[in-house]
Amino acid sequence: MTARLDRQVAFLNEADKLKSVVRGTTLCDASRYENSAEHSWHLTLYALVLADQAGPEVDINRVLRMLILHDLVEIDAGDNPIFGDHDVSQMQAQEAAAADRIFGLLPDDLRDELRPIWEEFEAAETPSAQFAKSLDRFQPPMQNLVSGGGSWTDYDVSEDQIAQKVGTKIARGAPALWDYARTRISAFFAARAS
Amino acid sequence: MTARLDRQVAFLNEADKLKSVVRGTTLCDASRYENSAEHSWHLTLYALVLADQAGPEVDINRVLRMLILHDLVEIDAGDNPIFGDHDVSQMQAQEAAAADRIFGLLPDDLRDELRPIWEEFEAAETPSAQFAKSLDRFQPPMQNLVSGGGSWTDYDVSEDQIAQKVGTKIARGAPALWDYARTRISAFFAARAS
Repeated sequence: MTARLDRQVAFLNEADKLKSVVRGTTLCDASRYENSAEHSWHLTLYALVLADQAGPEVDINRVLRMLILHDLVEIDAGDNPIFGDHDVSQMQAQEAAAADRIFGLLPDDLRDELRPIWEEFEAAETPSAQFAKSLDRFQPPMQNLVSGGGSWTDYDVSEDQIAQKVGTKIARGAPALWDYARTRISAFFAARAS
Repeated sequence: MTARLDRQVAFLNEADKLKSVVRGTTLCDASRYENSAEHSWHLTLYALVLADQAGPEVDINRVLRMLILHDLVEIDAGDNPIFGDHDVSQMQAQEAAAADRIFGLLPDDLRDELRPIWEEFEAAETPSAQFAKSLDRFQPPMQNLVSGGGSWTDYDVSEDQIAQKVGTKIARGAPALWDYARTRISAFFAARAS
């Protein structure tokens, strides 16, 4: 029992490091950049509040688990801002190695329960994973709209780039959320240009 | 549809403020104090990893929802460190007013779905709420043990005070977690005294 708890707690202590992984998006008040742990919490709240946007095959309990786990690999692999340059295959290799190490801290049964949830999220093939991915893409624009631009300003992106890199992924799992975001993003860019 | 989404997003943007509520516990590496949003995320991970400590009547999906929502009232009421002095009835009144305002930002159906989950957590009467509370009390000692003392040092607390203020609440919903924590806390205090 104690040996098992030692492994569970070692994993939970290692996971604490996600609080120090900094993302490209700021808080709504623009006071600082968000970290991946608090972002993950915020997404679980998005899932509870926007569950009415999920299709009938989406399992919200599975979505919550995906969102809790989805960024853990960033402890080793770092966050890759969506508008930044990065080699996708290299990033995927780094994240797979990170998953080996981090989920490997757990007792085997828990590793075998939790790692597949992260894999499902990454593969983005099931309705639950597609909805979770949509929320992960929908939250940063909502923050940028109220913080004054955030990562759109930092990376000097256009409305078209947002539609291409973010919009397609929001629309895949939650089309009405992309309709909503697009309208507000257009108004934001129009106001900024005027 | 847009009016509903406006309210959902207004609530989610308001919730962002939980990332700026600072707690009495530091990160494991003692680099800074933890905020209540990342703490809430960490607890959801505790629930997934320590679900084997839950009794048969505990609904882990309900526990996850409680942990996601449990600290939202701190946006208005602030965090009350467990070893600090505070008037319990005044704190409860502040938190109830905070719940009125914050959950009141949601569409009525969502307010009526989510606020009772927070109320259930606060009341700590159901097995799920008692388990969620146990995790909320178990995480800070796990952080303090590796950070070098954390809030135990800041508030100059004794082993007996920890047992009384924290131990009884961990033991109520997860007795083996308190057995585990108590042994490690005793060893920590013994090492510090020697």
